[in-house]
Amino acid sequence: MPTQLSQAKLGIITDEMRMVAEDETLAPEFVRDGVAAGTIVIPKNVNHKFRPRGIGKGLSTKVNANIGHSSDHQDDSEELRKLAMVVDTQADAVMDLSTGDHLDEMRTLMVQNSPLMLGTVPIYAVARGASIIKWTADDLFGEIEKQGQQGVDYITVHCGITRESVSRLEDCPRVEGIVSRGGSIHAHWIRFNNAENPLYEQFDRLLKICYKYDMTLSLGDGLRPGAIEDATDRPQLQELIILGQLQHRAHQAGVQAMIEGPGHVPLDQIAENMRIEKKLCNGAPFYVLGPLPIDIGAGYDHIVGAIGGAVASAAGADMLCYVTPAEHLRLPTLEDVRDGIIAFKIAAACGDVSKGVRGARERNFEMSRARKLLDWEGMYRLAIYGARAKEMRMESEDFDSAVCTMCGTLCAVNIDNATIRQTGRRELLQIGNILS
Amino acid sequence: MPTQLSQAKLGIITDEMRMVAEDETLAPEFVRDGVAAGTIVIPKNVNHKFRPRGIGKGLSTKVNANIGHSSDHQDDSEELRKLAMVVDTQADAVMDLSTGDHLDEMRTLMVQNSPLMLGTVPIYAVARGASIIKWTADDLFGEIEKQGQQGVDYITVHCGITRESVSRLEDCPRVEGIVSRGGSIHAHWIRFNNAENPLYEQFDRLLKICYKYDMTLSLGDGLRPGAIEDATDRPQLQELIILGQLQHRAHQAGVQAMIEGPGHVPLDQIAENMRIEKKLCNGAPFYVLGPLPIDIGAGYDHIVGAIGGAVASAAGADMLCYVTPAEHLRLPTLEDVRDGIIAFKIAAACGDVSKGVRGARERNFEMSRARKLLDWEGMYRLAIYGARAKEMRMESEDFDSAVCTMCGTLCAVNIDNATIRQTGRRELLQIGNILS
Repeated sequence: MPTQLSQAKLGIITDEMRMVAEDETLAPEFVRDGVAAGTIVIPKNVNHKFRPRGIGKGLSTKVNANIGHSSDHQDDSEELRKLAMVVDTQADAVMDLSTGDHLDEMRTLMVQNSPLMLGTVPIYAVARGASIIKWTADDLFGEIEKQGQQGVDYITVHCGITRESVSRLEDCPRVEGIVSRGGSIHAHWIRFNNAENPLYEQFDRLLKICYKYDMTLSLGDGLRPGAIEDATDRPQLQELIILGQLQHRAHQAGVQAMIEGPGHVPLDQIAENMRIEKKLCNGAPFYVLGPLPIDIGAGYDHIVGAIGGAVASAAGADMLCYVTPAEHLRLPTLEDVRDGIIAFKIAAACGDVSKGVRGARERNFEMSRARKLLDWEGMYRLAIYGARAKEMRMESEDFDSAVCTMCGTLCAVNIDNATIRQTGRRELLQIGNILS
Repeated sequence: MPTQLSQAKLGIITDEMRMVAEDETLAPEFVRDGVAAGTIVIPKNVNHKFRPRGIGKGLSTKVNANIGHSSDHQDDSEELRKLAMVVDTQADAVMDLSTGDHLDEMRTLMVQNSPLMLGTVPIYAVARGASIIKWTADDLFGEIEKQGQQGVDYITVHCGITRESVSRLEDCPRVEGIVSRGGSIHAHWIRFNNAENPLYEQFDRLLKICYKYDMTLSLGDGLRPGAIEDATDRPQLQELIILGQLQHRAHQAGVQAMIEGPGHVPLDQIAENMRIEKKLCNGAPFYVLGPLPIDIGAGYDHIVGAIGGAVASAAGADMLCYVTPAEHLRLPTLEDVRDGIIAFKIAAACGDVSKGVRGARERNFEMSRARKLLDWEGMYRLAIYGARAKEMRMESEDFDSAVCTMCGTLCAVNIDNATIRQTGRRELLQIGNILS
């Protein structure tokens, strides 16, 4: 069974590439060429039926939402309600990061109910079942094979946590050490067993499984910085160098791959992190967590992450993993999931305008035209979450007025429109004047 | 009576400069030299008693909150509760933008109750009293004099709305035209009366009043873009050129001045807007509204503005005017004011880390140390709004556990700490290693 990548290399435009192109209003050839070059991935397991989306160069920035229970908070139905919320708020991708009980049932339900690409972190199931240091290579590859059969579209695998990259931690003191769950499990396993990471050592075995199901590799950043002080340090970049090498091998084998990125990164280091990834990893799509430009936003880390995510997107990040207000504090609630997605949809939109994604400026232009015309229904329709905008306005005294309670009779738009009507001198910009 | 600026020019370090220096852990000489150069302002009317804060180069980024009623929503006590909220959430400055009834009483109450620098827009009172086109120069200067007596610390004056800058609109079509209330009033007045803006024509008269009360000029951007499509256009830059010239005249006259800035600006144009202001306006402090990098965030414009504000701050903005979730929809509620301030405190903190403001990295470092030690009380203490962080964690099952419900038994920090304890091999970074 061929993969999207193996077909693209042969010059074939698949139905999936056609759908991605249609949704992005791009030529199918552009998408095919991006997949062939490895700069675009279309995560879609052959066993999971849904309308796929693309991630990568020239496409709109995607937003991923992490859901799933933990050992200390487990309510399966709540997680399924979160999945519905993820779909409802129009995220592009979802990961089931459950680490509580009966993970197979949870994952099967998630795949069945997700009309979005669905990702997982297979090591969680393995480490949970056999303690974090006692699992074997066969346990892990068996789990990955099973998840491929179940229809998982992309898997985070911490292949870059190796003896070499872990050793970089020893001579490079960090404030936060390792903050990735998968990263800490693999590093602990390597040290305790005094052995190399099987995901690295037997990378071809991993590729073979992924090829079979066209499961996209999300090469995990187990050594991502968990404090801005640790950003862009030797362990982080050592891992990225290894991931770049592995992405190249995956690409040669016809297996789609993207790269995961930091983490906690100060604002002035975000753009350089994006450029370094593109260079070291052969232009592979970059899937970043946040990033968070400060460490002190607990309770509001969705806003912190949206700031970092917008800057990352503008500088080339292809998919943003959301951060919710609950980050660093507890498992997110349903409301936290909603707030996180909205914040990151905004971040992605900021980035898309900045980097010139097709259609991004146009939507803003139409919104501004509606605003100038005081066309409220038009504004609700064009806003990212117009329902909330309408709700807020309807709560005010001016719910059915031409203006709003912010300025009332001193509405600048209204005054300016009156001037234009009186003098007839000024013309407003038409979209045809500036956009092709 | 001398002003902060006139004294700084003479080499005098005032009590106000000393307090600003103390709060920023800088040398008083640094603050004095900044005030003398016009790159720092300390807005404090001689008739308003409070502990002042500085705005400008080398200082932490300040956050301003706009409150005040309108013709269509007027509840004086609600506005005073908003003032208390502004103080409580630790904004640095507040503007009373009331445009409803009995403005003098409202303003007097605001000055009396504000332990923060307080700003206003005098034209609102004038235009409200005599219709937006029928007021005279004497009306306006009389109002400014009165507000000086009342103790207003800084006033937005749209001196750059002139025949010249307004004419730039004619041959430069915009999507949104003029979106500044004061800007639209002055432009309308100029056209209707076929006369020059008295604030520009009689600028020395304005300077004389401001000198008397040491009232800081906030040179308003009446032609700021209200749509990202209008950003950085000829009208906007024409006005900025005029403001740069006026700031120079104010500085020569011993009157403190800062410059107001956009508005709606796409992410990739924000840094250049900051640099242009510093160049054209002689390094004067830049006080920006947002900026908003997209137009389509209605209902969540505090997040949109925080994204733009963080990037602006990192690139040199000195004070951020908050935007609330209610922007473009209605007058903000008490909760909107709180959410707006928190979002912009986060934006300012992101900028401060990035541009190297003293103490900014240190606080993040301490937070990360507390996080590594799973010291929850330390984390609450160091977070920007720790009370909310604590509340969120206390709602979870792990409220008194070492870890949290996000990862439970798979807590990466806990696993990593165990490794360090077992192997004894890794040292954690100490603040002394990296910070002087």
